[in-house]
Amino acid sequence: MRNLLLTICFDGSAYHGWQVQENAVTVQQTLQDALEQIIHKRDNITGCSRTDSGVHANMYCCNIRTQSGIECSKLVSALNAVLPDDIAVRNCIEASPDFHARYNCKSKEYIYRIWNSKCRNPFEYKHTFQYKYPLDEVFLDSQAKDFTGKHDFSAFCAAGSSVEDTVRTVTCAQVSRDGDLVTFRVCADGFLYNMVRIMVGTLIEISEGKIAPGTIPEIIKSGDRSNSGFTARPEGLFLNRVEY
Amino acid sequence: MRNLLLTICFDGSAYHGWQVQENAVTVQQTLQDALEQIIHKRDNITGCSRTDSGVHANMYCCNIRTQSGIECSKLVSALNAVLPDDIAVRNCIEASPDFHARYNCKSKEYIYRIWNSKCRNPFEYKHTFQYKYPLDEVFLDSQAKDFTGKHDFSAFCAAGSSVEDTVRTVTCAQVSRDGDLVTFRVCADGFLYNMVRIMVGTLIEISEGKIAPGTIPEIIKSGDRSNSGFTARPEGLFLNRVEY
Repeated sequence: MRNLLLTICFDGSAYHGWQVQENAVTVQQTLQDALEQIIHKRDNITGCSRTDSGVHANMYCCNIRTQSGIECSKLVSALNAVLPDDIAVRNCIEASPDFHARYNCKSKEYIYRIWNSKCRNPFEYKHTFQYKYPLDEVFLDSQAKDFTGKHDFSAFCAAGSSVEDTVRTVTCAQVSRDGDLVTFRVCADGFLYNMVRIMVGTLIEISEGKIAPGTIPEIIKSGDRSNSGFTARPEGLFLNRVEY
Repeated sequence: MRNLLLTICFDGSAYHGWQVQENAVTVQQTLQDALEQIIHKRDNITGCSRTDSGVHANMYCCNIRTQSGIECSKLVSALNAVLPDDIAVRNCIEASPDFHARYNCKSKEYIYRIWNSKCRNPFEYKHTFQYKYPLDEVFLDSQAKDFTGKHDFSAFCAAGSSVEDTVRTVTCAQVSRDGDLVTFRVCADGFLYNMVRIMVGTLIEISEGKIAPGTIPEIIKSGDRSNSGFTARPEGLFLNRVEY
């Protein structure tokens, strides 16, 4: 049995996230359908994380356990020929038999893109969240620094999530600007459900004066979801890097 | 009667070009519908140029003759509220009564974006033309320079075009690269039908060795469409700037 590590990227606009669901088109299912067309077997594909509806990935990793003898480079070309335009396979390599795309993941980086302009961008409206009021990226960057460190991030986890261990180590959190595009970048050993989107909503509420500046450490400490900000819309969120 | 100069941008993927047509959705018609919702009259909108199906505009100008007294800034907000996400109004100013968006145009700039990679870009496939073989942007830039000057561009005009004067002055033509994105930029006092797309097709055929390097001046001189290259696909083409 081979174990293949596949690196893909996808525009999530048309998908109900990664994970196979009934009655909804997902990235995992679309990839499994494509694979089945090529190797004539429905091999299981394990993703590095669940993603929400409308969330994108510049880099997403998954592993496939298969008995197919197809060469890695041929599999990449064949999958790209069969997949829709909004999913692309970047790379395929042989992984060790026990490699698992989720459990072996050491760190992930997400970016959240905000189109910070009164005028919407007709080319990027599916890949950014438009926010019309001026954002001070230098100030927000100083606020975001308080996310770094090893903390219990319960206050930044969607209510109803069943995960038990809510401690994560955030190694970088920064806000930068390129013209009208403001980007929040965050790296961690793992993320809770909606964690990045709640971080972004919190930064925006700090910008609006609804949450006091400098209170991110208190919010974290409270462990109370009601103290953090709103959940920012999915279309600005990209899984940007996965490390093993 | 007022005459308003409107500056817009649009993703042309979903439109059959600018110009109103029967049985097809166009940008002009969509804008007229939006305007009618706001001022309750179907005022005529004159565009700076026709554009083909699937072609985009980072900047497109049009003028509206209207008796409506609506403030320019309010018209911008109202139009943006009514228009679909793939069209945005950037600006509106009062123009002189005889201003005409097409006849008064002094120069236009187009860019053509080529995604030069074996791996498609799931985020840009509607806004670039994917070309898988390596392009040498320095070499192509040197070739593109031969487009500049005042020439009869009949060889770079779609067959069947009824335009009489085929002389145009190209003031800049360049090819540059940013990562996998190769961009052809061309400015002129005007463009013939499909002129930019045939220029791009010619550059690609030079890259492929199908057309000999250094022969663009001969092709121009021949005035024969059959000597130039193929018509590159519309999705890479953007009207980028309009000057009055």
